[in-house]
Amino acid sequence: MYKDQFYMNRALEIAQKGRFTVTPNPNVGCVIVKNNVIVGEGFHQKTGNAHAEILALEMAKEKAKNATVYVTLEPCSHYGHTPPCAKALIKAGVSRVVVAMKDPNPKVSGMGINMLLKAGLKIKKNVFLKKAETINRGFIKRMRTGIPYIRLKLACSLDGKIALKSGKSKWITCIDSRKDVQKLRSESCAILTTSKTVIIDNPSLTVRWHELPLNIKEDYKEKQLRQPIRIVLDKKNLITPNHKITQLEGKCLLIRSCLHNDIKWKGDVEEVFFNFEYQYNNLINLMIKLGSKKINTILVESGSKFATSLIKFNLFDELIIYIAPKFFGKDACNLVDFSGINIISDAPKFKFSNIKKIGNDLRITIYNKK
Amino acid sequence: MYKDQFYMNRALEIAQKGRFTVTPNPNVGCVIVKNNVIVGEGFHQKTGNAHAEILALEMAKEKAKNATVYVTLEPCSHYGHTPPCAKALIKAGVSRVVVAMKDPNPKVSGMGINMLLKAGLKIKKNVFLKKAETINRGFIKRMRTGIPYIRLKLACSLDGKIALKSGKSKWITCIDSRKDVQKLRSESCAILTTSKTVIIDNPSLTVRWHELPLNIKEDYKEKQLRQPIRIVLDKKNLITPNHKITQLEGKCLLIRSCLHNDIKWKGDVEEVFFNFEYQYNNLINLMIKLGSKKINTILVESGSKFATSLIKFNLFDELIIYIAPKFFGKDACNLVDFSGINIISDAPKFKFSNIKKIGNDLRITIYNKK
Repeated sequence: MYKDQFYMNRALEIAQKGRFTVTPNPNVGCVIVKNNVIVGEGFHQKTGNAHAEILALEMAKEKAKNATVYVTLEPCSHYGHTPPCAKALIKAGVSRVVVAMKDPNPKVSGMGINMLLKAGLKIKKNVFLKKAETINRGFIKRMRTGIPYIRLKLACSLDGKIALKSGKSKWITCIDSRKDVQKLRSESCAILTTSKTVIIDNPSLTVRWHELPLNIKEDYKEKQLRQPIRIVLDKKNLITPNHKITQLEGKCLLIRSCLHNDIKWKGDVEEVFFNFEYQYNNLINLMIKLGSKKINTILVESGSKFATSLIKFNLFDELIIYIAPKFFGKDACNLVDFSGINIISDAPKFKFSNIKKIGNDLRITIYNKK
Repeated sequence: MYKDQFYMNRALEIAQKGRFTVTPNPNVGCVIVKNNVIVGEGFHQKTGNAHAEILALEMAKEKAKNATVYVTLEPCSHYGHTPPCAKALIKAGVSRVVVAMKDPNPKVSGMGINMLLKAGLKIKKNVFLKKAETINRGFIKRMRTGIPYIRLKLACSLDGKIALKSGKSKWITCIDSRKDVQKLRSESCAILTTSKTVIIDNPSLTVRWHELPLNIKEDYKEKQLRQPIRIVLDKKNLITPNHKITQLEGKCLLIRSCLHNDIKWKGDVEEVFFNFEYQYNNLINLMIKLGSKKINTILVESGSKFATSLIKFNLFDELIIYIAPKFFGKDACNLVDFSGINIISDAPKFKFSNIKKIGNDLRITIYNKK
């Protein structure tokens, strides 16, 4: 039925309004329709706040009786921060529930739908399933694998260089690309970098609200601003309280092979023990550790060594490369750090998923089909 | 008047049908309109053949009287392979001539228009001037500067490498990109490479008609196939009669610092003396020499050393880069060969003019605004 698609599309649209604040929860949107009129809608904004279904029910009030509910993720069946939404829908007397996808959370996973079925409600599943999966890539991947969704961001010249020989890289890309990165950051639960990058660039790795595009600012007010967790791979304990990344608003995780709990940090810094080498098993373990901290999506903004590890071990989900129309020359720093490919068919090979001009630069997106 | 644009657009459209064969002449299209009906049209196909105006007049016959003529380039006023077109138009009794652009050929340059004015014809100039310039970029540049229009074609991996460490580069790009290069070749008067590339790859550098896109094959029949001149920079006389490039159909120019006229070549090979170093003045001189051979457009398909010279000395007009979604690694061969850039603002900087997905690859076009 075309009508189902129409209302589910609306539910998906509003679900995304929560994408800057919802972590570690999934984005959920809900629309309640009675006699072809939307009588209630809502989206989940952040942990502890009401779920989308509850907000939509509150808006619909008694009109929810015998109405159809469109919800982008299976209503929950368990008591978490809030009581189960499935129960609330039953109590409100809705007659039909259209669900875009089953909740990948093992605590729910079909039990919400079963609860509704048992109460005699009509159910339709998998309406716009693919789109529903897209808006919760991070949450779904973490629920299914324990590992966050990994976005690897790189920026290079047209001849594939990420910095001049001197290490200088400010700025390869144009101001529009840097604003676009602000958007990527705002959508991420965490930003990961290495101590080397911190020492060279002393970056903030924060979201600067005023640099976000207008359409985002409409959904995401300055007072709601949530800083992604800043994660630094700091094997040799090189990061000090003088580095900006440890001082600014928001949490900073230092992943270290040896902890020094007596350091007086100015900001919200947590030292996390990890025994790491850049090897596949350890990288997986690192990502599992970050997944266990309820991080759904990580934006990696590192140098080429760590980026190369992710590419070499096929550990990224999305690769985003900004290419500037400049040539840096053969002595500049390479985009990827590996070597030893002897035949072309051995070269790591991907597929350009999306190409967009951003200001003077080009943004290439590659979804890694594993 | 909108009508003028409409008919000039048609004239420009048919002018381009000659682009594979017309060299060293310009593309010209002509449309004759009487009482809002096209009564004659024609385009210039190749040297020695009738000009566009003459073909259109032949088709229009007596209907040319008091008609309006749309022609993409000023009608010629001199006796070349054929008598002056301006005279033929006057003789046919046309009343009005709409011209897209003045002929940059110093032998004409305004004199054709003057001839028409003196005969009492109404003249309108510069209708779709920019588009008319676009379809004759090569001819115009050669007429104005003595130097051919230089298109530099490169192909690289996403990390900016043109070959593996071993030198292997077959194939970086996908089959669609290689077909696209066939199109570039077919539009070029000459293809330029270096002896190093010939020795490593032993390429044909010919147009393979069956690999051309369908829409081109419609305008350009197999029997019309014209092979672009193959130019090899062969300073050290390394090219021998065993190299394919010297054997195949079409002309091959070997640019050498010392001539050996006693070599028995299998194909149409000409040795040309040139005292060359990869320095700016000599590169300019080389291009002037090639211009004097009536070459309008050159497609450069060389290794990175020569390509870098053209970039470094800002001697190219168009840069076309095919980027494959692969990584070759840090030990592979760099796209550009220069070094020593110490500040980012010193890096050669361009503007992406056109971006297109070609099969799995990306084709980037940069028009060099000098």
